[in-house]
Amino acid sequence: MICCLDLEGVLVPEIWIKVAEKTGIRDLRLTTRDVPNYDLLMKRRLGILAEHQITLADIQKIIQSVEPLPGARKFLDALRNKRQVFILSDTYYEFAMPLMKKLGHPTLLCNWLSVDSSGCIADYHLRQKNGKEKAVLAFKKMGFQVMAAGDSYNDIAMLEAADEGIFFNPPDKIVQEFPDFEVTRSYKELLRELLT
Amino acid sequence: MICCLDLEGVLVPEIWIKVAEKTGIRDLRLTTRDVPNYDLLMKRRLGILAEHQITLADIQKIIQSVEPLPGARKFLDALRNKRQVFILSDTYYEFAMPLMKKLGHPTLLCNWLSVDSSGCIADYHLRQKNGKEKAVLAFKKMGFQVMAAGDSYNDIAMLEAADEGIFFNPPDKIVQEFPDFEVTRSYKELLRELLT
Repeated sequence: MICCLDLEGVLVPEIWIKVAEKTGIRDLRLTTRDVPNYDLLMKRRLGILAEHQITLADIQKIIQSVEPLPGARKFLDALRNKRQVFILSDTYYEFAMPLMKKLGHPTLLCNWLSVDSSGCIADYHLRQKNGKEKAVLAFKKMGFQVMAAGDSYNDIAMLEAADEGIFFNPPDKIVQEFPDFEVTRSYKELLRELLT
Repeated sequence: MICCLDLEGVLVPEIWIKVAEKTGIRDLRLTTRDVPNYDLLMKRRLGILAEHQITLADIQKIIQSVEPLPGARKFLDALRNKRQVFILSDTYYEFAMPLMKKLGHPTLLCNWLSVDSSGCIADYHLRQKNGKEKAVLAFKKMGFQVMAAGDSYNDIAMLEAADEGIFFNPPDKIVQEFPDFEVTRSYKELLRELLT
């Protein structure tokens, strides 16, 4: 049995919001709710960083100071004792690796950044379209049963593709919109759902 | 970049050889190095266990006492710091989980056993045919570059499917037969190959 978990909001805080807080640049708080097109949103974010001459190294320093959500490491250790676990995320390896270390190096499938000669982020590279959903479908095709847990709109296709999809601390709006997924609000609840 | 590693002979000793040693049943020493046809090999092994009334619990007790190869944990920790790592093995979760704990819970893709009412192993269940190769192909299809390392005949298809395949401590015979793969003989060498 394989468990696929979203990263931000499930195991660690939202990375861009932490970057916005620490840099004091309010516009970096923008999400797909403000700019629905992900490509436009990322280009806007990268433009803001370039404008403020914030390098990848600066952001990595900020992320170094971010801690996993309270209890996340313990939850993950307990789950990995019984199940094979994958983190499926829309983030970037260049951002997430320090957080993976703090979580005991679970396997992460996400995306890449490229950097220009000044150390600024030049571009982002999606591994594939709908990467979370396609990873779940690939594991099913490999002969595994797959459970998945996430908190947000970008997790819905993954939760639907899995044999069982579970919400973890979702906003009320998304629960109303997708009432068929089990809702969990603590690691204890989520662990129980994933191990049954 | 994803690294796919064989388990037995690369990170831990050959499990069946340990079982042969501890039970004193010499015939259990046969491995895929000796009998390339896996189904014949497994049917033979399960027949021997049934004949000697050795249960899954007996074998699990033996495996509990097996340690990873010297340096394996340190190698794996160093690799997981930089790469996403999968253990692709023809072994069974029922055998391997105690060893995974000792290796810091890397993600393992392998197979299952079923047990009869007396606690003996009734049968083995392959997740899919050519599971190692198909996992590599699935990761490539997800948009990843894949490197793979193994030591034996049952790794060849995986090494060939990967962008780069590497031998780790292979027997001379297999090196002569497949001269195109890089040969490494220490974790230091293997780590260097996997990180370049």
